[in-house]
Amino acid sequence: MTNWLIISLVAGAISVAIALYIYFWVIKQEVGTERAAKVAGWIQAGAKAYLKKLYSALGLLAVVLGILIALIFGLDVEGGFAEPDLGRGIGMAITFLIGSLLSAVAGYLGMTVAVHANVRTATAANHSLTKAFNLSFRAGSVMGLATVGIAVIGMSAVYLITKNPNYVLGFSLGASMLALLAKAGGGIYTKTADIAADLVGKVEAGIPEDDPRNPAVVADNVGDNVGDVAGMGADIFDSYVASTVAAMLLGFALPNAADKIIYTVFPLIVCALGILASLLGMLFVNVKEGGRPGRALNTGTVVTCALLVALVVLIVLLGGYNVGVMWAAIAGIVTGMVIGFTSDYYTSDTGKPVQLTAKVSTSGSAINIITGFSYGLVSVVPSIVGIVAATLISYFTAEAFGMSGIYGVGIAAVGLLSVSGMIVSSDAYGPIVDNARGIAEMAGMDEEVIEKADVLDAAGNTAKAITKGFAISAAALTVLALFAAYSEVVFAASGQSLLISLRNPIVIAGALLGASAPPLFSALLMLSVTNNAFDMIEEIRKQWADDPRILKGEVEPDYEKCVALASQDALGALVGPAIIAVILPLAIGFILGPEALGGFLGGAILTGIIFALLMSNAGGLWDNAKKFIETGEFGGKGSEAHKAGVVGDTVGDPFKDTAGPSINTLITVMSLVSSTFAPIFAAFNIFG
Amino acid sequence: MTNWLIISLVAGAISVAIALYIYFWVIKQEVGTERAAKVAGWIQAGAKAYLKKLYSALGLLAVVLGILIALIFGLDVEGGFAEPDLGRGIGMAITFLIGSLLSAVAGYLGMTVAVHANVRTATAANHSLTKAFNLSFRAGSVMGLATVGIAVIGMSAVYLITKNPNYVLGFSLGASMLALLAKAGGGIYTKTADIAADLVGKVEAGIPEDDPRNPAVVADNVGDNVGDVAGMGADIFDSYVASTVAAMLLGFALPNAADKIIYTVFPLIVCALGILASLLGMLFVNVKEGGRPGRALNTGTVVTCALLVALVVLIVLLGGYNVGVMWAAIAGIVTGMVIGFTSDYYTSDTGKPVQLTAKVSTSGSAINIITGFSYGLVSVVPSIVGIVAATLISYFTAEAFGMSGIYGVGIAAVGLLSVSGMIVSSDAYGPIVDNARGIAEMAGMDEEVIEKADVLDAAGNTAKAITKGFAISAAALTVLALFAAYSEVVFAASGQSLLISLRNPIVIAGALLGASAPPLFSALLMLSVTNNAFDMIEEIRKQWADDPRILKGEVEPDYEKCVALASQDALGALVGPAIIAVILPLAIGFILGPEALGGFLGGAILTGIIFALLMSNAGGLWDNAKKFIETGEFGGKGSEAHKAGVVGDTVGDPFKDTAGPSINTLITVMSLVSSTFAPIFAAFNIFG
Repeated sequence: MTNWLIISLVAGAISVAIALYIYFWVIKQEVGTERAAKVAGWIQAGAKAYLKKLYSALGLLAVVLGILIALIFGLDVEGGFAEPDLGRGIGMAITFLIGSLLSAVAGYLGMTVAVHANVRTATAANHSLTKAFNLSFRAGSVMGLATVGIAVIGMSAVYLITKNPNYVLGFSLGASMLALLAKAGGGIYTKTADIAADLVGKVEAGIPEDDPRNPAVVADNVGDNVGDVAGMGADIFDSYVASTVAAMLLGFALPNAADKIIYTVFPLIVCALGILASLLGMLFVNVKEGGRPGRALNTGTVVTCALLVALVVLIVLLGGYNVGVMWAAIAGIVTGMVIGFTSDYYTSDTGKPVQLTAKVSTSGSAINIITGFSYGLVSVVPSIVGIVAATLISYFTAEAFGMSGIYGVGIAAVGLLSVSGMIVSSDAYGPIVDNARGIAEMAGMDEEVIEKADVLDAAGNTAKAITKGFAISAAALTVLALFAAYSEVVFAASGQSLLISLRNPIVIAGALLGASAPPLFSALLMLSVTNNAFDMIEEIRKQWADDPRILKGEVEPDYEKCVALASQDALGALVGPAIIAVILPLAIGFILGPEALGGFLGGAILTGIIFALLMSNAGGLWDNAKKFIETGEFGGKGSEAHKAGVVGDTVGDPFKDTAGPSINTLITVMSLVSSTFAPIFAAFNIFG
Repeated sequence: MTNWLIISLVAGAISVAIALYIYFWVIKQEVGTERAAKVAGWIQAGAKAYLKKLYSALGLLAVVLGILIALIFGLDVEGGFAEPDLGRGIGMAITFLIGSLLSAVAGYLGMTVAVHANVRTATAANHSLTKAFNLSFRAGSVMGLATVGIAVIGMSAVYLITKNPNYVLGFSLGASMLALLAKAGGGIYTKTADIAADLVGKVEAGIPEDDPRNPAVVADNVGDNVGDVAGMGADIFDSYVASTVAAMLLGFALPNAADKIIYTVFPLIVCALGILASLLGMLFVNVKEGGRPGRALNTGTVVTCALLVALVVLIVLLGGYNVGVMWAAIAGIVTGMVIGFTSDYYTSDTGKPVQLTAKVSTSGSAINIITGFSYGLVSVVPSIVGIVAATLISYFTAEAFGMSGIYGVGIAAVGLLSVSGMIVSSDAYGPIVDNARGIAEMAGMDEEVIEKADVLDAAGNTAKAITKGFAISAAALTVLALFAAYSEVVFAASGQSLLISLRNPIVIAGALLGASAPPLFSALLMLSVTNNAFDMIEEIRKQWADDPRILKGEVEPDYEKCVALASQDALGALVGPAIIAVILPLAIGFILGPEALGGFLGGAILTGIIFALLMSNAGGLWDNAKKFIETGEFGGKGSEAHKAGVVGDTVGDPFKDTAGPSINTLITVMSLVSSTFAPIFAAFNIFG
């Protein structure tokens, strides 16, 4: 198996190398006018300042947690780790810290390329759509390729050195914890600035979006980068690693000694194949002048998935792997695609939900909210059915070929996530072109450039709907696999099979508490957004009141002050969510024991998936209902329906960009915390 | 035990007799002016017409289901019912039909007294506040006493005759299915009319609430009766019966033969004690002229609970019952009170959530919605912690005294619900005084009368917050007990202990599907409200356009048309929800088997409790934030903040009055359907 580990290391290295090559290519492209460079410079400075603050705070937190992990795992505990062993403690701490560090590096790299690519995309749009598209998609692919490459290198190296997937678990925990806070902090930051800029700018002062007279406009654009690019990069890094480690742990738990080694490494092989498929798939992403960029992105995704299926079939058949595992991987990939494309129905303006929400907006914002929220609830169902189908198919096909069914579920998740290279590239493209549009506006570029940027932006939204469906189904399968891995870790540690029976009141108690965690977490994030937006609204009003020349366009506002305010508020808001993600599962484990914690995870996964789907889809639906009205339907821009549409869109902002996507990471972190510490509280707890 | 059954029958009969006595007392009170009588007459006619339609449709459905039940249970199935036995089938069908019928009678009686009491309350308010309060509270108590009395008579009689709690289960299923559809239909009706009347009347035409020129105004007042009174009466009837039958089934499952008989009847004893406590507690509900009616209602609730605790202690100690059962009952009652009073914090205008939501309304409706929704999510947590505490305490105290722990949980639910006589009386008081206010307005009574009605109305809202917390915690404990009862029924039928392990993919599949059922159900109800409101808005606009004299107050609008429209639309909207409640669990059971159905119920219970709490509390919060602004805060009536507050209130309407309270009944019905049919699909299913 060492050969395979080296191959996956090499695949990771190739991915990173290509990412770096494209990175330098992007940097070499034309920046454009001085004004454009200046505007882009503000955004770059703002984004870097925030990331510096964020990573300093998280670095400190990681070191403190690392020391705790070293102590806890170094101590003598009964169960899986039978002897006191300081080396083991230090090993866990180091892998944890490496995971955090690499997750941060992936996010930082993606963000850096994004803040350089945005202005260059705007400038390229002066020349041609094709050029602008190529530049922005390639910039996005830096993020995609770097993320998967770094992750695969990290996991392969840790396993190659330790031969123990528990250390890969430590690596994954480090990556996920950082991802969660980066994602949540970025999500709060971006929507704070966005809502404040919109409410005061568009509504109160009547100035357009991205108008340079608005003091929050730079913070708004910085937000797109720290929220959508850096946060999302860390998030996919986390799901990708978590699904792989879950499958590795499930492979490691196989009873047959030979199988054990083979199938612990197999998930890394799938990752390597996914990198290859993504690299090839990217070659199919091309747009001719006047072509449809959205279609090009989807073609890339479909080709990548098809190639991956072919590669998995080839390797399984040639390598003599269990055929059930192959079917499980295919089930995962196909279901992810189906969910992605069908969930598009609920958020696309060609579907009934968006059109009806737009129509009822003629009767005011309340009806818009009720209708959009209701369709958001309905949209949960097809995805859940898809996830159930993927779970059952991968489980039972694996079982049918004599393989552990739950390992099949794990591989379905890995199969789905192994195309992340391509998925992240499509997804990171979105905020880059969105920012390009903002810069074009702020730098006073031609109307034609802005129109091209709009075309690129619309493609980003289409791609986003599909990648989001992909991401949520991947996360769902991942946490289900992690949930199974948790049981295996407890079994390995205590020698007792964990019975998470819903007839046990301790399990029910855990499930009720777990089910309330994602709603509470979402609420804290959203309340932070409104509180912080309130702070920023006051700052904007103050700047305009203090110097009326700002609104006349004679004096530049103090952008930095808004940037600093958003950074500081976002970081301050992370304490509560971090406690829910890390301290709460530990408390349940240590107080009520591993069975209650199993119930807790089960409850959190159920409501987590449902709230993630609800919030992402309802948010997308409101956004597109507003845009649909803006195309001239039901009175068009400025009508009563449009005002109602704007209210819906604003409500949807923290739903889809703050709370919704962070919930995935929350349940992943909770699962990883539980699995990592399971050997400890299987040996010691108060009531369980 | 026969003695005790006869005592509980007598207690039920006394309750009904007192209810009837008060009913005739109410009818004899002064109606008032001709105009008032005329307005009240419209409401009475509208409400009766709707109930007639509703009960005709539901009667037909019940008969069809009754025949199916007779066939299914009469057939030969393996498991609990070993022999084909047509008598058993007919017995189940008859108890099912009796349950439906009695549930309808309770709702009808309560509604009838309410539509006669409203106008009399308005007229009494001409004389004095005390007189008006006494009249409306006594009218409410007709509903409370009739509900519990009829339920206890029905359950005691069925058990006395059959000596088999499975038949009481059939009775409960009949009651719950009718309650669900009455509640959901009434909830759709009331909010359709309310939203349509508000949007067209207040917002478009600028006429006040309850203005007689609005064609939907009668439908709006009818809605209060069919939604809040009849629907709610059927709902409490259902929870009350379901919790009792769950505890009876758990008692019937005790291993010791003597215990079995004693503890199957014990829940009925607690019900009888609850009736006594409620009757005594009502004597403490008194208001002096200028006094505070809200306080009087709360005093009644607290005294009733205290008396019940005393009575339970007395009977357990004197009767030699297990002391653990006593503590379980006390834990249930105390927790219900604590949850009721603390949940008040999130919806009362003295708390931070309401005040902050009102404050942020100055920045528009979107922020109001996000903030209110977020606090709604936060409000879930304390109630969940309370439910977890009640579950664990009742379980472990029962176990500590050598009693089945899960029986303890069942008794906690029964203890809590046995004070329903008092709770329903306080709650039914609310819509009566609300309607009294509407009639006073429509009949052109003095401003002073309307002010008194406002005082009475505010008290109704305070009482509602507390009774709602009570009702949700009761429902949660009930479904947890029903969930345990389900396992026992499967065990009794198949002889195999049901293993609902979250490690089984079939159970996970069931749990995921179950978890998505309450959100889907809520969405269907809310979409019906907006669709139907849209229909009605068009009707109102049409009437005004066809005859401009209506808006000048020269000609009466066609109230009946709006009433008929609301009725028809509400009934049409019940098909989807009924399928989710009844067909879905049957499909899961027959296709995936009893373990998957266990997972399904678990998932539905978790999200059901969370969505019920979220929607009820967020709705109440928005309502009171608007009212808080109306007291003059943040600009008062007509300000931008007020407009935002109205949007929040309108969004909250279907949350708190349509979807939220129906979810309780949904999960009860699902649990009852599962338990009732468990013997059938334990013997036969496709994949389980």
